[in-house]
Amino acid sequence: MEKQLTNPLAALPQAVEFWFEFGSSYSYLTAMRIEDCARAAGVPLLWRPFLLGPIFRSFGWETSPFVLQEAKGRYMWRDMEREALRLGLPFRRPSQFPRIALLPMRVATLGAAEPWIGEFCRRVMRQNWVEDREIDNADAVRSALDGLVPDADATLGAALAPANKLRLRARTEEAAARGIFGAPSFFVGDELFWGNDRLEAALALAGGRA
Amino acid sequence: MEKQLTNPLAALPQAVEFWFEFGSSYSYLTAMRIEDCARAAGVPLLWRPFLLGPIFRSFGWETSPFVLQEAKGRYMWRDMEREALRLGLPFRRPSQFPRIALLPMRVATLGAAEPWIGEFCRRVMRQNWVEDREIDNADAVRSALDGLVPDADATLGAALAPANKLRLRARTEEAAARGIFGAPSFFVGDELFWGNDRLEAALALAGGRA
Repeated sequence: MEKQLTNPLAALPQAVEFWFEFGSSYSYLTAMRIEDCARAAGVPLLWRPFLLGPIFRSFGWETSPFVLQEAKGRYMWRDMEREALRLGLPFRRPSQFPRIALLPMRVATLGAAEPWIGEFCRRVMRQNWVEDREIDNADAVRSALDGLVPDADATLGAALAPANKLRLRARTEEAAARGIFGAPSFFVGDELFWGNDRLEAALALAGGRA
Repeated sequence: MEKQLTNPLAALPQAVEFWFEFGSSYSYLTAMRIEDCARAAGVPLLWRPFLLGPIFRSFGWETSPFVLQEAKGRYMWRDMEREALRLGLPFRRPSQFPRIALLPMRVATLGAAEPWIGEFCRRVMRQNWVEDREIDNADAVRSALDGLVPDADATLGAALAPANKLRLRARTEEAAARGIFGAPSFFVGDELFWGNDRLEAALALAGGRA
């Protein structure tokens, strides 16, 4: 029998891509815990903010399916309460749903590879899903950036630059092209997982335990 | 301090209602294991066959969302493969989806409280999701009933009686009235759970462990 050469890279964990929207309820349940979960699994994490609105419009829907289908929406609010409790996360049903999130999504796009991205996303999610605050304005975003960047207004300015706006649009087009139809979604290589319920399976695959 | 009277019934497990369709992919993953899981949890199980078609039509859809939304459908088939593997269940993607299941659904309605209901449902599910057989005909249903009832033709006849047809229609109307929007679904009292992923949570609540 020949001696087999082994590829030392084969044992390394793959990254998990986290595709999310601040306006998406189940994205909240993932965003609050994914950094800790990925670290515990030894899996590199890539933040992938994208806009759900254009995806839904491509299906002919003018808003969230949780609004369009009343029974499904009623169920989702109850399921969110139960799942937040199970995961030990605070949760208050927002008075507005789905909340427009364009400005913080642009900031998340700008900062996706920065060390502050996780904390920024958790703060914006908390504003929407715990504090019931509007999030699509400079005041809310400035308070979410507080202490994370040297100059929040400079970050806001960069987020509003045409190149960054285009980057978020390109991310959204990439999501559609790769078959994403809702949020949260995860990619491990070309393997797609949909929903907060699949976070553990995605991390297991990425970490080589699936 | 007064001595408290305790209600001995309060500690008894509640039943779980299993609402399902033979044509529903994720109902397959639940139907194959729910009898064992409920027994292990000490939870009484109530089989609740209902028709998904009228529910979908009430949303303005002429067929399954997995057909109407191509990306979601593509994802579902991959997710079914992964989930069947995880649960140790055989699975072959059927050449027809969604498969019409009216006749076996009527037999399941007739036998919902009979001791053979579990085995009958697993056999019909296997025909659709493993053997890729048409299930809406007397031959398929007879073979699924084989050895379970004394006279399969008599059972088929009773399933086609007007009173039993009305019973399935009433079940479907009950599903819609109670807020069911997909399958599988579970009720524990008035608490609704949706999806194979929520079987464990429903059983935990029913068994008093949630």
